Amino acid sequence: MEYELFYWPGIQGRGEFIRLALEDAGARYVDVARGPEGVKAIARVLRGEGFEGPAPFAPPVLKHGPLVIAQVANILHYLAPRLGLAPDGEAAQHQALQLQLTVVDLVAEVHDTHHPLSTALYYEDQKPESRRRAASFVSQRLPKFLGYFERALARNGEGEHLLGGTVSYVDLSLFQVVEGLRYAFPRAMALAEPKVPRVVALRDRVAERPRLAAYLSSPRRLAFNESGIFRRYPELDLVPGEE
Amino acid sequence: MEYELFYWPGIQGRGEFIRLALEDAGARYVDVARGPEGVKAIARVLRGEGFEGPAPFAPPVLKHGPLVIAQVANILHYLAPRLGLAPDGEAAQHQALQLQLTVVDLVAEVHDTHHPLSTALYYEDQKPESRRRAASFVSQRLPKFLGYFERALARNGEGEHLLGGTVSYVDLSLFQVVEGLRYAFPRAMALAEPKVPRVVALRDRVAERPRLAAYLSSPRRLAFNESGIFRRYPELDLVPGEE
Repeated sequence: MEYELFYWPGIQGRGEFIRLALEDAGARYVDVARGPEGVKAIARVLRGEGFEGPAPFAPPVLKHGPLVIAQVANILHYLAPRLGLAPDGEAAQHQALQLQLTVVDLVAEVHDTHHPLSTALYYEDQKPESRRRAASFVSQRLPKFLGYFERALARNGEGEHLLGGTVSYVDLSLFQVVEGLRYAFPRAMALAEPKVPRVVALRDRVAERPRLAAYLSSPRRLAFNESGIFRRYPELDLVPGEE
Repeated sequence: MEYELFYWPGIQGRGEFIRLALEDAGARYVDVARGPEGVKAIARVLRGEGFEGPAPFAPPVLKHGPLVIAQVANILHYLAPRLGLAPDGEAAQHQALQLQLTVVDLVAEVHDTHHPLSTALYYEDQKPESRRRAASFVSQRLPKFLGYFERALARNGEGEHLLGGTVSYVDLSLFQVVEGLRYAFPRAMALAEPKVPRVVALRDRVAERPRLAAYLSSPRRLAFNESGIFRRYPELDLVPGEE
């Protein structure tokens, strides 16, 4: 049964975490909103048309047969055992969900570096506040999150995966976080990366996985841009201590 | 086997969503940090001492036998089937997790009404920005979230529960959201509540559940205060249209 992903066309955004898992597994899926009438299809699913159960609050949304679910970590927790990207056992799957939710928290903080006051305002209407939030992010939060994942890798056997002995969806998501942070905060990342060698090595191993490498060099992988979550604004590309 | 909850003493905070489930189920649990040396116990668990698997990024943390997990929605997703607070079946449990993660998002936005620029600064150091964020929150986000949960209730049978035919942990969390919003934004809630009668009725039914009512009137239920997530600052108690 084919998977249907509903996410805004034109950006990687939160949908990319789902795409990476589907692509790495070689799963059959339709990226609905990139087809004709795709944005209308998103509107229909957000209104709850054509299925039972709660409507999504926001994309990304996954449809699989009669089931429609939202929230990145929830979708990945559902997909991963089906795609061969979950660690074995209930305990490890809760540990994976814990790590993924920490990725989700990091992504929300990245989003708020360019929208600290309101999602209803443009970035241009909250630039001074964005700079203060970005300064705090690169000084405190970015090193804290990366250090956290570095220690999680160090605690897990050889440190090649976040959980267990094989790759899981959380490893793919950490790859995406590194890519996004490199795009949005290249100066801070240049300083941060030498302190998290396991994170960087994981990023490199994920990038070399054959199906993922094929995806990353395909037109399906959109470039980062300033409509997504990870945005490159030179005025926010700060290093710790800058304000 | 007893549950151990690790969360900052002195506030309801994110830990309260876990407490409500444990209390409603009549589960045996220890609120570790309210005992002697409790904050040191939190520090040890955050350092990953004494267990395998990833350390938590932040409290709340649940320990159950050898398993240690963090993140509110993850902990509840683990506990709920054990406490009789999960809907039946895998599909419904993913729908529950979706709704709970939407509660988590709302709670994060409430937190950011008093910390829009940085968690490393005091509220007093970001007051003008807090006011702008709170204005946006009560105008746009609060009605959007409450309307979302109202529609989720309307879609589910008689509208008495968010999922299935009995109470789930998500219902308990929505109760807590209403309580917190009434505390933090009483003027906006007085305007919003008439538009979401199912949400208000759910809040009332949850408050009357015998074990929960006993908990709510016990000393274990701390009062809301200005160290928690839901804070009452008169200058942020705005209504839509105020700036």
